[in-house]
Amino acid sequence: MSLTRTDISARILAGRQPDIADSFEAYAPVNIALCKYWGKRNAVLNLPVNDSLSISLGNKGTTTRLTRLPGAEKDKVFLNGKPVDGESAFCRKVVAHIDLFRPLGSGALRVETRNDVATGAGLASSASGFAALTKALVGLYGLTLSNEELSIIARLGSGSASRSIYSGFAHWHRGVRPDGMDSFASSLDVIWPELRVGVLTLAESEKPTGSREGMQRTVDSAILYNSWPEQADRDIRRLEHAITVRDFTLLGSTAEQNAMAMHATMLASWPPLLYWQPESVEVLQKVWQVRQDGVQVFATMDAGPNVKVLFESNSEPEMRSVFQSMDVIAPFS
Amino acid sequence: MSLTRTDISARILAGRQPDIADSFEAYAPVNIALCKYWGKRNAVLNLPVNDSLSISLGNKGTTTRLTRLPGAEKDKVFLNGKPVDGESAFCRKVVAHIDLFRPLGSGALRVETRNDVATGAGLASSASGFAALTKALVGLYGLTLSNEELSIIARLGSGSASRSIYSGFAHWHRGVRPDGMDSFASSLDVIWPELRVGVLTLAESEKPTGSREGMQRTVDSAILYNSWPEQADRDIRRLEHAITVRDFTLLGSTAEQNAMAMHATMLASWPPLLYWQPESVEVLQKVWQVRQDGVQVFATMDAGPNVKVLFESNSEPEMRSVFQSMDVIAPFS
Repeated sequence: MSLTRTDISARILAGRQPDIADSFEAYAPVNIALCKYWGKRNAVLNLPVNDSLSISLGNKGTTTRLTRLPGAEKDKVFLNGKPVDGESAFCRKVVAHIDLFRPLGSGALRVETRNDVATGAGLASSASGFAALTKALVGLYGLTLSNEELSIIARLGSGSASRSIYSGFAHWHRGVRPDGMDSFASSLDVIWPELRVGVLTLAESEKPTGSREGMQRTVDSAILYNSWPEQADRDIRRLEHAITVRDFTLLGSTAEQNAMAMHATMLASWPPLLYWQPESVEVLQKVWQVRQDGVQVFATMDAGPNVKVLFESNSEPEMRSVFQSMDVIAPFS
Repeated sequence: MSLTRTDISARILAGRQPDIADSFEAYAPVNIALCKYWGKRNAVLNLPVNDSLSISLGNKGTTTRLTRLPGAEKDKVFLNGKPVDGESAFCRKVVAHIDLFRPLGSGALRVETRNDVATGAGLASSASGFAALTKALVGLYGLTLSNEELSIIARLGSGSASRSIYSGFAHWHRGVRPDGMDSFASSLDVIWPELRVGVLTLAESEKPTGSREGMQRTVDSAILYNSWPEQADRDIRRLEHAITVRDFTLLGSTAEQNAMAMHATMLASWPPLLYWQPESVEVLQKVWQVRQDGVQVFATMDAGPNVKVLFESNSEPEMRSVFQSMDVIAPFS
């Protein structure tokens, strides 16, 4: 019989003595993968085909406050101040995640979630969302969990949430166990104060194909996906080396090729999966032009039309003048 | 020692008795690959990694007239009525192709080439060009060559020219021999009168990276290219079946996925190779929208920004109303 998410959370939470607070608030940052999570070996437990590696975006993320609702029968969920329909996919996923902790006895909760980034536009708000919710639940129950345990539980909500537990660089180890107890992220103990991430938001609308579905279509129908694990393995090794020796060109070029290779596997799916808008091509070509002109800048894209760029602080003035609507984030400040 | 192109042409032309005319004109059509030629196993002899399969575009192509220039020392090349600089890459390639036949004794030639399509905009004018030049040379010398021999000599000028020897469907067999004597196209003896190819020309300008260079960059740097031969093998089998049983949906969907997979391998290269313009995305999304609305239409793209669409005659009125600037070609009429 295959394992359920409840089986996994129960293993981690078994025998814990909760000390339940009335209310608890937690924050988790958005993360941008430099080597992408693309493809699952187990879709129930969100176990990935490949390792991934990300950088968290400092104070861009999700803040979630949980408050007990004594006597209420159902959780009440608010997103950016507005009540969320209980039948929506968003609400059902949040409630299902809380259910992992429900055996510890909180009863119904009020969930207030605020995102600093647009929901569903390829800025990975589900990663920061499930990481913040996991941290808030652990805090509400007064539990002490290791980062690896937090990462595993966050992963059960959304794969990339496993990395949003951390600030800075995080490496999500795919693991090999069927139960996924070895599939969690760990922090890379490195700071890189000069690193900048520029977010060029073209579209804030919800995307037509969610990344969960897109990932599955790619795995099922793209022959080129057969070479993706080899790409990811190489890129993880390169990124770890680039971070260790502070080689920005190696970091950026690896991240850009990895992102383009991920989009390539989507394009090679049937039917073809293209998250890009015409403006995505325009921005990519502009990035490549600026690089040809001598600025060390590299692009990355997630399952959406937006382009993010990586550069160092010495290029910031030039980058700001070229991309005037860009939001610049210093992950280590 | 590795074989040169002259070694190969000499084998085919050895012992032939030429009967040289003063002038000869020949025509060859452009072809659109439904399974693309992408990657060489031998760059000198233009031997491909994979089989490819194309449809020739009837009266869209190249007409080349050769005329002897007694007493002249050098060939004179004209493209669309204008003299071509003798030092240009175009001229050097044409002269090098004529050189394959020069031992038979024509002396210098006047070469007048006219294309019905823009040069260098991803509409494969080099394919029709080298096929027409090969046919014209064989005609000028009064030789009788088999189609396979014509195809091999055309291939020495430009890989995809091996297919432009034929009208209708052509299958270029990659071959396995180091000398490439088994790497030629053959005609599929099928006609499909209802088939239509729509050409949506976004850009007629020369592309920044030629397909020869793009192909090499992909083979050298794209890990995803490792899965391309498997993609091509599957698609050749599917296309041959689709053509045999006249299954348009299978033909079109296979051609579209193959084209997108080829562009995917380019995107996964380093630096990323993107022949698309913003308008390419716009047109692709429009094609996909029209298909979702019930019209059986599929896209294909070559090493350029233009989109070609495949449909059948029953969809022609609807397609013409959606894509008003489209040039519609009926390959079998």
